Amino acid sequence: MDSDFGAARELSDLQKLRSQYHPQLPPCLQGTTVRVEFGDATTAPDLADAHTISRFFPHTYGQPLAHFLRATAKVPNAQVITEHPAVRVGVVFCGRQSPGGHNVIWGLLDALKVHIPKSTLLGFLGGSEGLSAQKTLEITDDILATYKNQGGYDLLGRTKDQIRTTEQVTAALNACTDLKLDALVIIGGVTSNTDAAQLAETFAERKCPTKVVGIPVTLNGDLKNQFVESNVGFDTICKVNSQLISNVCTDALSAEKYYYFIRLMGRKASHVALECTLQSHPNMVILAEEVAASKLTLFDITKQICDAVQARAEQDKYHGVILLPEGLIESIPEVYALLQEIHRLLRKRVSADNISAQLSPWSSALFEFLPPFIKKQLLLHPESDDSAQLSQIETEKLLAHLVEAEMNKRLKEGTYKGKKFNAICHFFGYQARGSLPSKFDCDYAYVLGHISYHIIAAGLNGYMATVNNLKNHVNKWRCGAAPITAMLTVKRYGHGNGALTIGKPALHPATVDLKGRAYELLGQNATKFLMDDLYRNPGPLQFDGPGADAKAVTLCVEDQDYMGRIKKLQEYLDKVRSIVKPGCSQDVLKAALSAMSSVTDILSVMSSPMSANTPSKSVFPVLAATPHF
Amino acid sequence: MDSDFGAARELSDLQKLRSQYHPQLPPCLQGTTVRVEFGDATTAPDLADAHTISRFFPHTYGQPLAHFLRATAKVPNAQVITEHPAVRVGVVFCGRQSPGGHNVIWGLLDALKVHIPKSTLLGFLGGSEGLSAQKTLEITDDILATYKNQGGYDLLGRTKDQIRTTEQVTAALNACTDLKLDALVIIGGVTSNTDAAQLAETFAERKCPTKVVGIPVTLNGDLKNQFVESNVGFDTICKVNSQLISNVCTDALSAEKYYYFIRLMGRKASHVALECTLQSHPNMVILAEEVAASKLTLFDITKQICDAVQARAEQDKYHGVILLPEGLIESIPEVYALLQEIHRLLRKRVSADNISAQLSPWSSALFEFLPPFIKKQLLLHPESDDSAQLSQIETEKLLAHLVEAEMNKRLKEGTYKGKKFNAICHFFGYQARGSLPSKFDCDYAYVLGHISYHIIAAGLNGYMATVNNLKNHVNKWRCGAAPITAMLTVKRYGHGNGALTIGKPALHPATVDLKGRAYELLGQNATKFLMDDLYRNPGPLQFDGPGADAKAVTLCVEDQDYMGRIKKLQEYLDKVRSIVKPGCSQDVLKAALSAMSSVTDILSVMSSPMSANTPSKSVFPVLAATPHF
Repeated sequence: MDSDFGAARELSDLQKLRSQYHPQLPPCLQGTTVRVEFGDATTAPDLADAHTISRFFPHTYGQPLAHFLRATAKVPNAQVITEHPAVRVGVVFCGRQSPGGHNVIWGLLDALKVHIPKSTLLGFLGGSEGLSAQKTLEITDDILATYKNQGGYDLLGRTKDQIRTTEQVTAALNACTDLKLDALVIIGGVTSNTDAAQLAETFAERKCPTKVVGIPVTLNGDLKNQFVESNVGFDTICKVNSQLISNVCTDALSAEKYYYFIRLMGRKASHVALECTLQSHPNMVILAEEVAASKLTLFDITKQICDAVQARAEQDKYHGVILLPEGLIESIPEVYALLQEIHRLLRKRVSADNISAQLSPWSSALFEFLPPFIKKQLLLHPESDDSAQLSQIETEKLLAHLVEAEMNKRLKEGTYKGKKFNAICHFFGYQARGSLPSKFDCDYAYVLGHISYHIIAAGLNGYMATVNNLKNHVNKWRCGAAPITAMLTVKRYGHGNGALTIGKPALHPATVDLKGRAYELLGQNATKFLMDDLYRNPGPLQFDGPGADAKAVTLCVEDQDYMGRIKKLQEYLDKVRSIVKPGCSQDVLKAALSAMSSVTDILSVMSSPMSANTPSKSVFPVLAATPHF
Repeated sequence: MDSDFGAARELSDLQKLRSQYHPQLPPCLQGTTVRVEFGDATTAPDLADAHTISRFFPHTYGQPLAHFLRATAKVPNAQVITEHPAVRVGVVFCGRQSPGGHNVIWGLLDALKVHIPKSTLLGFLGGSEGLSAQKTLEITDDILATYKNQGGYDLLGRTKDQIRTTEQVTAALNACTDLKLDALVIIGGVTSNTDAAQLAETFAERKCPTKVVGIPVTLNGDLKNQFVESNVGFDTICKVNSQLISNVCTDALSAEKYYYFIRLMGRKASHVALECTLQSHPNMVILAEEVAASKLTLFDITKQICDAVQARAEQDKYHGVILLPEGLIESIPEVYALLQEIHRLLRKRVSADNISAQLSPWSSALFEFLPPFIKKQLLLHPESDDSAQLSQIETEKLLAHLVEAEMNKRLKEGTYKGKKFNAICHFFGYQARGSLPSKFDCDYAYVLGHISYHIIAAGLNGYMATVNNLKNHVNKWRCGAAPITAMLTVKRYGHGNGALTIGKPALHPATVDLKGRAYELLGQNATKFLMDDLYRNPGPLQFDGPGADAKAVTLCVEDQDYMGRIKKLQEYLDKVRSIVKPGCSQDVLKAALSAMSSVTDILSVMSSPMSANTPSKSVFPVLAATPHF
């Protein structure tokens, strides 16, 4: 099979056209000279975690931000990297495929060719397995020819495993050493970038000269924080899913007799479901974050849907479309508790057949109440990140089943007088994941690939490539790099008796911010969407003309330019320093002292690590483990 | 709800662009003058059925073909319809929605506006229900504005029922009389067009002046015969499904650990599955027609898939994509027999719980062998056309289940030494049905709408609008009309003891022609598709640039121009007549007589109704009830 990797293949006419497309570079990356400006040393997003993180990552914690600027930028401290010795770089796809991944490799190769033509780029075959086994393919422009702007990870294949155990980490280190790699670029989501941070730390500790770089590529869109606005693949996934959801909405409105329950792939967080809702305006979406925040039970959710069905029936509407994120099931308190019990028993090697008898009375009652198909799915072994196998649990069927039962009950009792409730269930995930990437994802991935080269050239280790200002045109994108350690958080689990377990620092999936603008936008429209069938059809993914340059709604409504604002703050501080130079008037100094004392007081209070003393974080890590940025 | 029909709605940018697109008319329909040429009287496709059909359809059987020609066409007998009194026309969506349906109405309205501006076009709301209840919406250009080139049937809604019972037919007749309709245009597939033929006959018999016109619109692509090359919606459905199948193929190749089993909507026949296979090149497709022709059992099919999985494992390939038409389940002999028994018991009002006990020993053994989820689905009440509820029976899960069990068995026995088999199942149907229609479907539907006007202007009753030469550019399309009675066939059911039941004449779904070129093309490539992963990704549906004008592979490879060849034959006959005029030489007459005698002898033998004497047709009506044209 390996011999097939990187093989040229026949492309369809549309694929050929797409392979001819060349993404634009933002001005800061154009030409052969790029400046690097280093910002202040970074800290952890939650100060309470800082000590733990610095203990786990002594070599890579606290490194400064890096900004890449055009050669002509007038920034006093920015360095121009002038030495470009030939480098050997390895690149590996980790975790689930996400549209656009191939373009990261293309961007990296192009940057290498521009700056150091003699360099070598090695792709690892089959992800982490290939890394351990040192199976590589040298990436050339010829090999990339039929993979540019194309979907999937089939150029190299992807990992089926993490890089986490001592054996795996050692194998990775040996591979980098044996292959004399100057850098290893890891393309993946939260789990893979946590691995990247760990590898970087281990390499630094063991004096392995290979620098590790992470690239945020995940269709879930949940690798989001101050530094990272969006992930490669999310845009495409949401567009393809929205196309299908819109088609189903049109279908519902034409047939007028079905409720469609659609579950969307996207792991624990509900970013995909929220974005698709804002693109296609289905009647209803139930976000995992809302359910967890309001502690809604399975029965609350069922009732909520039934009430909606009933309200629509009163307007003689017997159709509808309801979106459910795949993470929903874990966000329901009693189901989460049940899953935790099941997973604990599975880890104790209790066989699936015997689990039911060993559950707590409360969980056992819930478990016995559930229909057989879902019981079987809940009994599946958890994923490597300890979450349930979300893609295998048919929450849409469970809810359709419960809603049908409740509507039949209401019908019998005479509290509902409409027509019989009919549901059709769908799971949209795999059919979007292999799509041709959207223009946005092609551009974003290609630019990230370029940035990864500049991170390597600057000799940085344990950094993630970042682009800010994504909602604007490419020529306004700001490119940089942030230490992955500055994105890590620590989970604390209360055990009820005051005892506290502190987890290992990791990147945790960012959940939908219930105070954010995107969620607010949903709130403003929810009733209209529910009752008025304002279905919107963005149509199939286009590469030219209307819609081709559309960006995610959730990206555009949020004001995310954190990196820009950090720079702005630096400018203010510099300005104060330049105004209040020794020799300035007493009055100016006095004013400055007074104002600055007040600013520092306020900020000290705001950023004191109060939360470190109590396990204030929810017991549902789905939700609260990751702070909302 | 009714008040929402025809409401203007907000369109996305892409939808707006599409709503501006104006389909081209073929030359014969351009301008204000169109000639009609009548061909010879038609017969039935199977002469053995002719008598039965003429008995059921005394008023509408044997009518001539009609060809629409440009005003300047040099055809001696062609008439120009010069009188265009104002007409009142009704139009109704029957059966399942299919992309492009709205454009039939638009084409009809445009033709009415060009030829008789004072005419009235009434759309029935909610399909046959609206027809019975005389709920109408007057169609105007304003109302159509946001529905042009858009998917779904939401302008008017669609029927949930047939027009078949005496009450339904009488209600339709009353509606046409009360509303003073000159014509009723029925948009639908095989069932609805059978209803159209019946309505036309009844109207003629009862001297109702309303003419009935049928339009072939069905995503299944199974309303195919000498006169009808393709159906509106089939092109779009296959393109959208092929996009998704290709995405799944890319996914399979990237993850390298799953077999995807994809069931495709399309009713009994496998046209959609065959077309999607030729567009996207998955590893395997199992056509219902092949299974029925070879009388493959469930175990044969399972073995066939397992052998393929094993052969691929030997090449270290543990992924693959397998397509299954939804009609597959009914084509498996023993499952079909089981379904027939179940349906017979259901009709006797045996409750689902008691059916198992009353099955024949053979069917009972099969039934008990099946997993619970599929048992439940097989026990569903049959559809109005007596077939099983194909969209509800998860054949893909059944086969994945059986293949997994067999692979585990082989693994245990040591005959298979590869990795564990993993399957993911999909059903693609509803998410394609509401799509924006492809350019082809927009054009085809619009032209059919125009033709329906010319059928009405020519005063024809019980005709279907036809376009031939579809694989060529619109300016080579040939427009005509054929009596629906000329497309009807009669099913004969043998009862084993020589007794024979003769069914009512009907349009039956055309099955995939196992002697046709499209199937031959599949045969030539099947092994390569299976082993070499020649996945082809046509990409998402485009409206401009590469792929936008692509037509169905099955349409392009078949040489279908039956109407053209019928015309060619007429030309030969006319030429013979003009050469062998009274006064010609003895030699010429002798040669003509000799040649013509030989021709007529051969044709008499070839078209003798031998099949009328024996129930030579298979007991599986899925397959053999409809002759392959």
